[in-house]
Amino acid sequence: MKYENEKVSGIHIAYIGGGSRGWAWGLMGDLAMDSDLTGTVKLYDINYEAAQINSTIGNNLSLRDDVKGKWRYEAVSTLKEALTGADFVIISILPGSFKDMASDVNLPQEYGIYQSVGDTTGPGGIVRALRTIPMYVEIAEAVKAVSPNAWVINYTNPMTLCTRTLSEIFPQIKVVGCCHEVFGTQELLAAMLKAMKGMKDVSYKDITVNVLGINHFTWINEASYQGMDLMPIYKEFVDKYYETGFEEHPGNWEKSFFGSANRIHFDLFRRYGLIAAAGDRHLAEFMPSTWYLKDPDTVKAYKFSLTPIEYRLKRQKELSHQSKRLANREEEVALRPSGEEGLRMIKALLGLGNFVINVNMPNQGQVSGLPIGAVVETNALMARDSVRPVMAGRLPIDIHNMVSRHVLNQEVVLRAALTKDKSLAFRAFSNDPLVNIDINKAEELFNRMLQNTKGYLSGWDL
Amino acid sequence: MKYENEKVSGIHIAYIGGGSRGWAWGLMGDLAMDSDLTGTVKLYDINYEAAQINSTIGNNLSLRDDVKGKWRYEAVSTLKEALTGADFVIISILPGSFKDMASDVNLPQEYGIYQSVGDTTGPGGIVRALRTIPMYVEIAEAVKAVSPNAWVINYTNPMTLCTRTLSEIFPQIKVVGCCHEVFGTQELLAAMLKAMKGMKDVSYKDITVNVLGINHFTWINEASYQGMDLMPIYKEFVDKYYETGFEEHPGNWEKSFFGSANRIHFDLFRRYGLIAAAGDRHLAEFMPSTWYLKDPDTVKAYKFSLTPIEYRLKRQKELSHQSKRLANREEEVALRPSGEEGLRMIKALLGLGNFVINVNMPNQGQVSGLPIGAVVETNALMARDSVRPVMAGRLPIDIHNMVSRHVLNQEVVLRAALTKDKSLAFRAFSNDPLVNIDINKAEELFNRMLQNTKGYLSGWDL
Amino acid sequence: MKYENEKVSGIHIAYIGGGSRGWAWGLMGDLAMDSDLTGTVKLYDINYEAAQINSTIGNNLSLRDDVKGKWRYEAVSTLKEALTGADFVIISILPGSFKDMASDVNLPQEYGIYQSVGDTTGPGGIVRALRTIPMYVEIAEAVKAVSPNAWVINYTNPMTLCTRTLSEIFPQIKVVGCCHEVFGTQELLAAMLKAMKGMKDVSYKDITVNVLGINHFTWINEASYQGMDLMPIYKEFVDKYYETGFEEHPGNWEKSFFGSANRIHFDLFRRYGLIAAAGDRHLAEFMPSTWYLKDPDTVKAYKFSLTPIEYRLKRQKELSHQSKRLANREEEVALRPSGEEGLRMIKALLGLGNFVINVNMPNQGQVSGLPIGAVVETNALMARDSVRPVMAGRLPIDIHNMVSRHVLNQEVVLRAALTKDKSLAFRAFSNDPLVNIDINKAEELFNRMLQNTKGYLSGWDL
Amino acid sequence: MKYENEKVSGIHIAYIGGGSRGWAWGLMGDLAMDSDLTGTVKLYDINYEAAQINSTIGNNLSLRDDVKGKWRYEAVSTLKEALTGADFVIISILPGSFKDMASDVNLPQEYGIYQSVGDTTGPGGIVRALRTIPMYVEIAEAVKAVSPNAWVINYTNPMTLCTRTLSEIFPQIKVVGCCHEVFGTQELLAAMLKAMKGMKDVSYKDITVNVLGINHFTWINEASYQGMDLMPIYKEFVDKYYETGFEEHPGNWEKSFFGSANRIHFDLFRRYGLIAAAGDRHLAEFMPSTWYLKDPDTVKAYKFSLTPIEYRLKRQKELSHQSKRLANREEEVALRPSGEEGLRMIKALLGLGNFVINVNMPNQGQVSGLPIGAVVETNALMARDSVRPVMAGRLPIDIHNMVSRHVLNQEVVLRAALTKDKSLAFRAFSNDPLVNIDINKAEELFNRMLQNTKGYLSGWDL
Repeated sequence: MKYENEKVSGIHIAYIGGGSRGWAWGLMGDLAMDSDLTGTVKLYDINYEAAQINSTIGNNLSLRDDVKGKWRYEAVSTLKEALTGADFVIISILPGSFKDMASDVNLPQEYGIYQSVGDTTGPGGIVRALRTIPMYVEIAEAVKAVSPNAWVINYTNPMTLCTRTLSEIFPQIKVVGCCHEVFGTQELLAAMLKAMKGMKDVSYKDITVNVLGINHFTWINEASYQGMDLMPIYKEFVDKYYETGFEEHPGNWEKSFFGSANRIHFDLFRRYGLIAAAGDRHLAEFMPSTWYLKDPDTVKAYKFSLTPIEYRLKRQKELSHQSKRLANREEEVALRPSGEEGLRMIKALLGLGNFVINVNMPNQGQVSGLPIGAVVETNALMARDSVRPVMAGRLPIDIHNMVSRHVLNQEVVLRAALTKDKSLAFRAFSNDPLVNIDINKAEELFNRMLQNTKGYLSGWDL
Repeated sequence: MKYENEKVSGIHIAYIGGGSRGWAWGLMGDLAMDSDLTGTVKLYDINYEAAQINSTIGNNLSLRDDVKGKWRYEAVSTLKEALTGADFVIISILPGSFKDMASDVNLPQEYGIYQSVGDTTGPGGIVRALRTIPMYVEIAEAVKAVSPNAWVINYTNPMTLCTRTLSEIFPQIKVVGCCHEVFGTQELLAAMLKAMKGMKDVSYKDITVNVLGINHFTWINEASYQGMDLMPIYKEFVDKYYETGFEEHPGNWEKSFFGSANRIHFDLFRRYGLIAAAGDRHLAEFMPSTWYLKDPDTVKAYKFSLTPIEYRLKRQKELSHQSKRLANREEEVALRPSGEEGLRMIKALLGLGNFVINVNMPNQGQVSGLPIGAVVETNALMARDSVRPVMAGRLPIDIHNMVSRHVLNQEVVLRAALTKDKSLAFRAFSNDPLVNIDINKAEELFNRMLQNTKGYLSGWDL
Repeated sequence: MKYENEKVSGIHIAYIGGGSRGWAWGLMGDLAMDSDLTGTVKLYDINYEAAQINSTIGNNLSLRDDVKGKWRYEAVSTLKEALTGADFVIISILPGSFKDMASDVNLPQEYGIYQSVGDTTGPGGIVRALRTIPMYVEIAEAVKAVSPNAWVINYTNPMTLCTRTLSEIFPQIKVVGCCHEVFGTQELLAAMLKAMKGMKDVSYKDITVNVLGINHFTWINEASYQGMDLMPIYKEFVDKYYETGFEEHPGNWEKSFFGSANRIHFDLFRRYGLIAAAGDRHLAEFMPSTWYLKDPDTVKAYKFSLTPIEYRLKRQKELSHQSKRLANREEEVALRPSGEEGLRMIKALLGLGNFVINVNMPNQGQVSGLPIGAVVETNALMARDSVRPVMAGRLPIDIHNMVSRHVLNQEVVLRAALTKDKSLAFRAFSNDPLVNIDINKAEELFNRMLQNTKGYLSGWDL
Repeated sequence: MKYENEKVSGIHIAYIGGGSRGWAWGLMGDLAMDSDLTGTVKLYDINYEAAQINSTIGNNLSLRDDVKGKWRYEAVSTLKEALTGADFVIISILPGSFKDMASDVNLPQEYGIYQSVGDTTGPGGIVRALRTIPMYVEIAEAVKAVSPNAWVINYTNPMTLCTRTLSEIFPQIKVVGCCHEVFGTQELLAAMLKAMKGMKDVSYKDITVNVLGINHFTWINEASYQGMDLMPIYKEFVDKYYETGFEEHPGNWEKSFFGSANRIHFDLFRRYGLIAAAGDRHLAEFMPSTWYLKDPDTVKAYKFSLTPIEYRLKRQKELSHQSKRLANREEEVALRPSGEEGLRMIKALLGLGNFVINVNMPNQGQVSGLPIGAVVETNALMARDSVRPVMAGRLPIDIHNMVSRHVLNQEVVLRAALTKDKSLAFRAFSNDPLVNIDINKAEELFNRMLQNTKGYLSGWDL
């Protein structure tokens, strides 16, 4: 790398899952709009062809006149090739196919267990984790061997266990897990200021929050905008919209599987007094099945949706077509911010501007009371070659209990995956709050799910 | 007190709940059989008459020729009187009436929640705790004011929260909580040696175990008898009796509400690999309702019973009659060991013989990973004016997760009771593994139970 | 307070030690140059007249046309009056007179113990602490009673023990201790960039450092400027200037009692590998007397000075004259930044700009390995009504051992002062690295020093 | 091994340092007097001939009619041979020769540093540790490879660092470090009961103490005998004998280099309030040189001695002669208890009698506040295949500070020895309380000492 006039050239980014559609193009767009950095992005994907198409798309972009950041994109066929010389490693993979995800989500429904996402916790999240951890073991070992000083930025779910696997296998790894769900809650707070106070131009980035918990189940206990304390305003906001829910664009939740009317946000605030900082679809899955995911009617009453796998398959097909159009320049990558903060983090890590943002990292004490080493989500100060968590404090004990149950379950899942121990894995599975069915039925479901994902569980005694 | 020739006279014991039947007579018998100690027992009870009858029974005993330990029994009408000058304080009360207990146990059944005991955890245990904690606050404050140097021995359930309340209110209190459930598991191990190895005369006291967890949900990870490691033998034992269960006197579980065929012991060992160290009736209540307490048929299949309140009421009546017969000397207190270790502890605390026994005490680190200050059950070394826990180590993380959930829930219950916070109390209630019902139904149940126990909840906004 | 257009009016600052000269005028100047804030500063001082003169000086300032921030200054005669309604409390007092300080510094010299400052550690620092702690107990109790929600900013030395006393007496207090010594080391790094790399315009504020340790004995293990890692440059810098020392203005150390040629900085870096982040005068006092403070010749060889009390007395007199001139407007307060960050902190706490700065606060885990609750110095994120430490990590164990010895000694001093326990105080005194003399001689010195400061030790048995 | 009738045969003990004189014969005697155990002792020593002579001595013993425990002794020539099949490993070696020890003790004297023993701390202890740690690395690796389930009992000094090295290299090792110094203090308490209360037949084994600290610098905060609290009696005892000191056999300290009049015991009690639980010779070395080891006159005034190396050399020669006489049966091994508790521990670990005794083990929390993993000395409960520390609590903070300094210094020494880092080793050396000399002189001394012990420091850059 070479620094000159607060610009850096010769940066090498390894992109694991470089054949991905949405995420990869988002990053390409962000890089293209920034004039301070240039270098090479090596795209690695188990689907090499997809990586190649993406390299074409990326290189097309660099030819455009309106693009300020000119990067070279290169598809590579091995992990080692991607990592060699890497300054940054971005990981954004789909662990398994959507068919596997269908098993994660649909099979539990046969047993009366509904999941709105199925990629983080619950039966789907746990089985997905068992499948993903070996992939992350391989990545961690490769980073350790090939690019131990690179910064690794993870985007894959289950976020906590992916990040945790990296730090377990290679404890010195420089890793942050990044997720935009907290931004969504900051946006909700900005929308609240508009709705409650008539303040129109508040950017979510100017909402200061203190975040503590784990990915998709993290909590805000302090929120402010300039001189204003947002907590009492949020209370009024919840009181006003508790029954109806609140959306910036009312009715959106019925049109998009990703939308919601924030009724779970509001119910959790009423019951627990803090602001849960992820979308309702994720939050619902961390609570017992007797709360928000009892059955489709309950889901509808709470104004959110179960994301059907059919939708994901359809969307995948569309993106596949789009990728071809982009490669052929029948269509152009749009130059608008992706909403992710990967680029800003890279710049901070290069010394081009310290900032504070929420990240997922092993707990060094930033969340008091949660185990040291478990991956938690809090704010951190990013600076040159350094990410230091901000002390977030301690959750109220009632919330802590709920969070801790998931944290410890995740640790059990990790250990089960690493030791290929089916009995141990089931102990985690049976202890998930969504697995609220007869223990023997639960065991049957677990066995069927494992059979479906067996192809990824080499060395297990199944 | 006066020491002479390894005997101690002039000891003062305060007995809170001194009108109790079974427990009080047991202690009287134990004291009567020991020639090393004498002194006064002050009996305090909210039922003063019952305390008076017991004082007559106790003093009758001291008149008998076959009695070696001559104690004076005195009924007193205030807590302060009982505690004044006390060297030891024994607490064994019934918090509320059996009618209250009927609400604890029967109301949840209307909602499909079955409890085998209902005094420790589950809806019944939690509501009982809410009722009991104010009584223990009063006791703690009295001990602090009147007899701060006395050793306090608690026998009341919920053991953990009673002991925890004492240490919360008066952190310097010298307190141990005592429970015979671990002895029962040691006896099971002795019976195992007979069944599996033909060893007939093994006393449970010679079975060495390492105990760690919380009262009624504690675990043994090391067990030995002289040179023998009992863990592999237990594995064979479980394999042999897994389906049928095991009882020293087969069929007993169907005759007694307190018996069981240890099938839950065996199932927990199969699933988790450690020996759970309480009776099946207690263990069942700590696991989710989808395991052992799903419905009466499941209970029967696991060969244990739901203790009906009717039985307790009947038994109470019998004991009331017996107490009159004992006071009138129509019947005599039997001189046989009670099976409790209170006397042996008192002797150790007086300097008359160090020994190691399981006790419930605030965690100073004896169970790694559980919160400091939470009341845990492990071995401790008892010596003159000193009880020091033995480092018990760390539970396997999967078991730790289950135990930790209860520990934190107990902390929430404590705080709710101390601050009279109904919403907080419900957060604990709704997080109990037996409360696996629709969250709104759970709230209804909770409200009804609180109404029933309202008389004990002064200052609450109900 | 009132917010309008990102400006705040009606702020109330209580200034304890409001009769001080240098510090008070510096704050007045900083406030005067800032157009975003206005309000009232209440000046409280045991020397009421000095506070009155300062109020005149401050109000004069507000009349000037070139002053943007118009504040009202008011001398008050009680602590309570000052604190009533306070949003911020600034504490900058002289604990005792310079005559007391003469005893702190000169008496130890009779025993061969040399101190370069004598206000933080060593015999002088410890006795000063014993004298100061009761004053801080009084302040803490007043803040608790009168203005519990105010933010307290401490500038007084001994910084650690003053701040620690506040948090001991009123654990919920919102307190930060501020010290400019780290800025000095950041300035040294900026000067290094000029000397070694020809970079002329680097501001110390743009030097990013990770700080961990305790006030006046804190350490930097990461330092960067934009994309540059400053640690290897510092190594070359030390190698180049190890023998001669380095000063921006060579020879300055001989002219000013506050200067140094950074030889102790360099020696500590050579021996320990991290950058000590305070001036040499302070650093020397934390090391054993056999290192840098053996005798005046050693001090001279290391190119720093013992600050004579005569100098301080002379300086005090000058400032006293200046204060009169300022009150009479024979002279005007200069409008230049004081170099302290108090104003920037106040603005951040009001929601007018988050930033990261080093502060002294009770350890919540920001320095791993040091006791929770001890006051440590690290970076913190300042935001609206919030100061959250940044996780600074763990010191190398050899440095940790030296720091820990002082931290624990400070805890002993605190306890001794609170319990007025002379024997305990001597145990801290005798364990200070500068007290390297015969234990009986040490006791004699200690007794003489206590006699001299007796007037402040009410309730002690001396 | 074979159990029968509470006796065990076929035990295999590996004795590392099996050519030693005093210690080996003591163990042989203890084994010979016990009728419950038999088996083989494999003697390994770098001096093979000495091991052979000892095997002859041991086998002679087994031929005697008055010997109940018949063991077979076998000299082996490799560590591996000794450990193969071992149930127990006893380590009692002399790390280096007495010539090396002469350097440890005499060289510092040239610089004015006096040491009474020189094997634990101070310049001598640190250099001895640097020499010994590589030997223990070798032993730890061999135990890990050959006999990972064996119990290892260490007797070698420096006790803490020997034990610590074993647990660092092989964390799963089952190790206890045993030392009789606490017994000596228990004997002092027994003697006190005789002197103060006329109680003649008290055995030190019946004195119950709570011990906490590190080997040779551990402390007693509770002591009792039957119903008596010994702490107030000790206070009177100290008051009575503070000036004169106390010995059971007055004047003994002048005749034996190992005796003392306990004046340091008494002075530490006066100053700190707890009973230091090691001999004065050891205690003196943990305190700054300005206390008890200032010069020979001070030593004499405190009524203890500097053990001259000449004495050790002379004693070695005598034992060498004795060993030949024993091998030739010109003399017989005396059958009297050695005063060590190794045999009793072995029996407990075999399941033949649980008991509580002080041991050195990695801290799991038994001493609150000291680092987890550091080797500390407390009571422990020994049972079949199990040693569990008793929670000893927390030292008063002033004593904790002194102990902690040594604990952390030991950790630095360990790291320096493992990484062969001379600079790091000097940082520990220069931070020892006895190294109170000019820092440059200290460096010179350190270098000279390292040169003298260079033969053991392979791989170091000296």
